[in-house]
Amino acid sequence: MKPLILQSDFGYSDGAVSAMHGVAYTVNPELSIHNLTHNIPPYDVWEGSCRLVQTVGYWPKGSVFVSVVDPGVGSDRLSVVAKTKSGHYIVTPDNGTLTHVAVEYGIEELREIDETINRLPGSAHSHTFHGRDIYSYTGARLAAGVITFEEVGPVLGEEYLVTLPIMEPRVEGDQVCGTIDTHDVRYGSLWTNIPRELFLELGMELGQYVRVHIENDRGDVFSAPLKYVRSFADVSVGEALIYTNSLDNIAVAINRGSFARAYSVGQGTHWKVSFRYPLADAPHA
Amino acid sequence: MKPLILQSDFGYSDGAVSAMHGVAYTVNPELSIHNLTHNIPPYDVWEGSCRLVQTVGYWPKGSVFVSVVDPGVGSDRLSVVAKTKSGHYIVTPDNGTLTHVAVEYGIEELREIDETINRLPGSAHSHTFHGRDIYSYTGARLAAGVITFEEVGPVLGEEYLVTLPIMEPRVEGDQVCGTIDTHDVRYGSLWTNIPRELFLELGMELGQYVRVHIENDRGDVFSAPLKYVRSFADVSVGEALIYTNSLDNIAVAINRGSFARAYSVGQGTHWKVSFRYPLADAPHA
Amino acid sequence: MKPLILQSDFGYSDGAVSAMHGVAYTVNPELSIHNLTHNIPPYDVWEGSCRLVQTVGYWPKGSVFVSVVDPGVGSDRLSVVAKTKSGHYIVTPDNGTLTHVAVEYGIEELREIDETINRLPGSAHSHTFHGRDIYSYTGARLAAGVITFEEVGPVLGEEYLVTLPIMEPRVEGDQVCGTIDTHDVRYGSLWTNIPRELFLELGMELGQYVRVHIENDRGDVFSAPLKYVRSFADVSVGEALIYTNSLDNIAVAINRGSFARAYSVGQGTHWKVSFRYPLADAPHA
Repeated sequence: MKPLILQSDFGYSDGAVSAMHGVAYTVNPELSIHNLTHNIPPYDVWEGSCRLVQTVGYWPKGSVFVSVVDPGVGSDRLSVVAKTKSGHYIVTPDNGTLTHVAVEYGIEELREIDETINRLPGSAHSHTFHGRDIYSYTGARLAAGVITFEEVGPVLGEEYLVTLPIMEPRVEGDQVCGTIDTHDVRYGSLWTNIPRELFLELGMELGQYVRVHIENDRGDVFSAPLKYVRSFADVSVGEALIYTNSLDNIAVAINRGSFARAYSVGQGTHWKVSFRYPLADAPHA
Repeated sequence: MKPLILQSDFGYSDGAVSAMHGVAYTVNPELSIHNLTHNIPPYDVWEGSCRLVQTVGYWPKGSVFVSVVDPGVGSDRLSVVAKTKSGHYIVTPDNGTLTHVAVEYGIEELREIDETINRLPGSAHSHTFHGRDIYSYTGARLAAGVITFEEVGPVLGEEYLVTLPIMEPRVEGDQVCGTIDTHDVRYGSLWTNIPRELFLELGMELGQYVRVHIENDRGDVFSAPLKYVRSFADVSVGEALIYTNSLDNIAVAINRGSFARAYSVGQGTHWKVSFRYPLADAPHA
Repeated sequence: MKPLILQSDFGYSDGAVSAMHGVAYTVNPELSIHNLTHNIPPYDVWEGSCRLVQTVGYWPKGSVFVSVVDPGVGSDRLSVVAKTKSGHYIVTPDNGTLTHVAVEYGIEELREIDETINRLPGSAHSHTFHGRDIYSYTGARLAAGVITFEEVGPVLGEEYLVTLPIMEPRVEGDQVCGTIDTHDVRYGSLWTNIPRELFLELGMELGQYVRVHIENDRGDVFSAPLKYVRSFADVSVGEALIYTNSLDNIAVAINRGSFARAYSVGQGTHWKVSFRYPLADAPHA
């Protein structure tokens, strides 16, 4: 018996999430059912992809994730189960939700859900709630050991894996460049896709100033030297900082403020960020 | 041991829901405790009734639901447990929360909670949180088999069942008429109380246009032909559609938009909707 | 095996809460993991303290609470586990979160978490998510019996317990004075820190009028006689009332309205409230 972890853009205000739980519970009352989040903004596949990669590694090998952000429900997009190289399973429409997990963990095998057998009995007339009728049902059966991964359906070649475009982080001279993947919503912190180790190739150390530059399609949004520190408490209240986030990537924030709101910063691949070091004009720490 | 599923208008921002979970856990640590939603708008018994009917059927027979939307807490409204004809139990103030479940599943038997025995010990001075002191406690004891349904308290005649007024959907000539029961909140879709089978009595088929007319107490709100399709992906992005929702009722939406927001449509029995078919002036598909 | 109950200011919109659940699940898949709330306003230690005291007593002795409202993450604030005199455990940064629990239940013993042993393996480079790496991990191990309370780390003297300033409620002549600790958010009710028994020392009875006076740093906010009743249903819709809340303290509300919004009332020690009885000018009931 493996845990089942559910994610969606259904919100917490109606009965949709509970219907998914009920379907899973009915498959096997002993299942351990958890919510990742159901507050993914409607149709935001990118955000769903980011939240998965933030979480998957903290659950044991064999855990089954169900992610339903499904703007194409009822179209010919495929329903799949991916097995990651880390040994986790993800049940999802094949629409880009696997983008970040594929980069971070790698996909070992992708299978198409055979809906002729892996579909809640009696749900044939429902074409708008595959989260309940197919994904939760299949995820629960996989987690409970009712079906094996092989019994999900036929293997798909890797060319079937739909991914969203991303920009690989890279070092260019005295700069490291990347994008702002997502925010730590509650605190307005910017989470870049730049790993700590790549960032450190520039040679900076804790306590030193690094120039942060943020731009989007329409131009520059922010450019200033900020201190690279271990944690929020290393700067004053209201001061901006560069730090390593809980995914071991570089992040930018304001201590007890919101960097995202202060500078109206969004997220996604068109939000580019770079860090430059050393600085000729570094402030005196 | 049966699952216990909790619903309320308490929200997720304070300790009320956790106090209910704690009371249930204390009754029996093996209980499987789930949330339906706690985001029912404050005092909105109608919405609580709609969310129950959306969910109940996806949980196994014998499951115990607790629903606490209780504007009359401390009044002489009764506390009851209903057993539905589908074999589910619902613990609730008798204030209309059972309206839709009574129509959809039927009530097999209604019992008044005998608060002299079915009340959290030591809670006699608390008159404003029956959700914790009576409903969660009684629901947990019923789900855990500490008490039988008969031990809840005395049977009530069906005249004691409080229901809110509803309008039965019906066919009138070339129209089928009903009301907008609720919304699929996150997507702004309108969920009518018109079953698919009644709708289809007009003779339309998938892909055909049907005239949708929406009005409230103050007049007409929307009137236009929309295509009846299987799912969102069958129309363009931004296009409105008629489809069968996940409860097998007819719904109206905008693909990746919000119909409710676009036309300021609310919910409840004063929001009337009709579908007319065939159309003399149907657009060419 | 004891239940593990998690609270934080992380919100429900990203993967943080699920990462905490995953860490706890990995410690022991049999653990019963629950959420208190994760909607504590960011950095609001006072609110975290209030929500704990609202909930702790409804969970059995030995239950382990984890509360992570941690504006000082990465500073020299201590990480502790408190054992209350009621036999509950609370895992938290030592920053004032224990204020109300210390008053209401008393702290039997406080221990500092020895992070050299009680830290998620492999998390040494993460300095901003102790909720996952230290608190959830340690709470889960304590709840699962992997470590004893003694194995958390060394005992701290009571002088190490950080508490926020509070004002003890007291009777002064014909008045009882206190503060507005928090709100019943969904209904806009004001929850004072005045116990029912202290309030009743003035001699009022149910159904009688009592003068309510509310002020903050900037002056008077509200002053009028309100009826002291058992519950909301004892006054008209839209009428204000004084009642005993679910913690056996005195509260002020508007039946089916929001007192907090009607008079822009906040919460905390600078929001002072007094009740005066008897009144020369009491309205006729």
